[in-house]
Amino acid sequence: MEQPVIVFDVNETLSDLAPLAQRFADVGADPRTARIWFGEVLRDGFALTLAGTPVPFATLAAERARALLAGSDVDGGVEHVLEGLRGLAVHRDVVPGIAALSGAGFRLVTLTNGATATAERLLGDAGVLPAFERLLSVEETDAAGAWKPSPAAYRSAEHALGLPPERLLLVAVHPWDVHGAATAGWRTAWLDRRSEPYPVSMRQPDLRAAGLVGLAEQLTAGPPPGSGDQPAGA
Amino acid sequence: MEQPVIVFDVNETLSDLAPLAQRFADVGADPRTARIWFGEVLRDGFALTLAGTPVPFATLAAERARALLAGSDVDGGVEHVLEGLRGLAVHRDVVPGIAALSGAGFRLVTLTNGATATAERLLGDAGVLPAFERLLSVEETDAAGAWKPSPAAYRSAEHALGLPPERLLLVAVHPWDVHGAATAGWRTAWLDRRSEPYPVSMRQPDLRAAGLVGLAEQLTAGPPPGSGDQPAGA
Repeated sequence: MEQPVIVFDVNETLSDLAPLAQRFADVGADPRTARIWFGEVLRDGFALTLAGTPVPFATLAAERARALLAGSDVDGGVEHVLEGLRGLAVHRDVVPGIAALSGAGFRLVTLTNGATATAERLLGDAGVLPAFERLLSVEETDAAGAWKPSPAAYRSAEHALGLPPERLLLVAVHPWDVHGAATAGWRTAWLDRRSEPYPVSMRQPDLRAAGLVGLAEQLTAGPPPGSGDQPAGA
Repeated sequence: MEQPVIVFDVNETLSDLAPLAQRFADVGADPRTARIWFGEVLRDGFALTLAGTPVPFATLAAERARALLAGSDVDGGVEHVLEGLRGLAVHRDVVPGIAALSGAGFRLVTLTNGATATAERLLGDAGVLPAFERLLSVEETDAAGAWKPSPAAYRSAEHALGLPPERLLLVAVHPWDVHGAATAGWRTAWLDRRSEPYPVSMRQPDLRAAGLVGLAEQLTAGPPPGSGDQPAGA
């Protein structure tokens, strides 16, 4: 079996959102507001996609920050949070993990609900941009802006890459993304960065790892996942 | 123009979720975890609907509580939170607001992403259940479990009631629900319980009120909304 083409989610899968907690704290909010913010950005993005009227990630990121800081009297608070979002760095396992996967000959791609420019800046700053063959966004494919986990988002990546679903391996920290890709017929790897239980209501990933270095070890150690020799969920 | 049939959302629109913050605090979590929990329940419910594989609200409510309390060592913590969820009461404006609307001859209905039994218990405890003509849930209509704001959820209520969209007025605290109903062709009223700005990325409500008493005053004071004489967004 051929090597899968590896398709990475971007927000929180490659980028480390942890500094956003401090950004909210800087402007007088509880640091846990960062997690509320991200959950509600996704909630509203999915809701608008469900209603058939998707909008860009950046629009909702700003809107939810404004809503959550509505009671704050710190001037420029929303801009301070959004500046933090634009300046995020990759998790520390990303650079060595991408180097290992690229070195082993895997074709690497991103597929984000956010903007392509965000992924490009993030990976460029980390010095790993040349390892990626394509940077895809639901905003710029035939998904017409429909957010993952809409089937249209995964199909749009298949079309852009000219590959069938079984050739693609999604790597994501979010179970809803793993579920959506698995439902679309892709193979999947879940990055368990938070040590929270994987939801029983969602399709289980084919592979699990704490980070990209561990994932690269699994993918380069033996035959590719789905060949029948790779333990799933190990 | 005929009076609209008023369709109420249930969770957070009629029920007051505020006691859940204390429930999380009781088991050692930050009280703001309650808002994280509700946002992520909706996030996952919408995601699973988007993927074409919706699951019941109660399943995700339990699953997200387990995830958020995964680091807690309080025995029975998840059950303590879920018991709080099952015992919620209505907001204080609900009983007088429903009485005013029912007294003015409006037909009243609920449409929830949760279970019908939850709405029945909530409204029964508050003593307003007899004012409601029907209690609808996306779990028990031809929505086949698809959560609002999926168009299928609003269509299923139209089918169950045998009414066209323009005869229905959604009342909800959640902008995503107002947006979904407006996109489906319903009239809408937004309950602004949190004093957060209404999202610019979503369809604006026809009516706004701080609670059901104020909404009842608007609906009974003049001609019905949409007749051309009622100020929208007042």
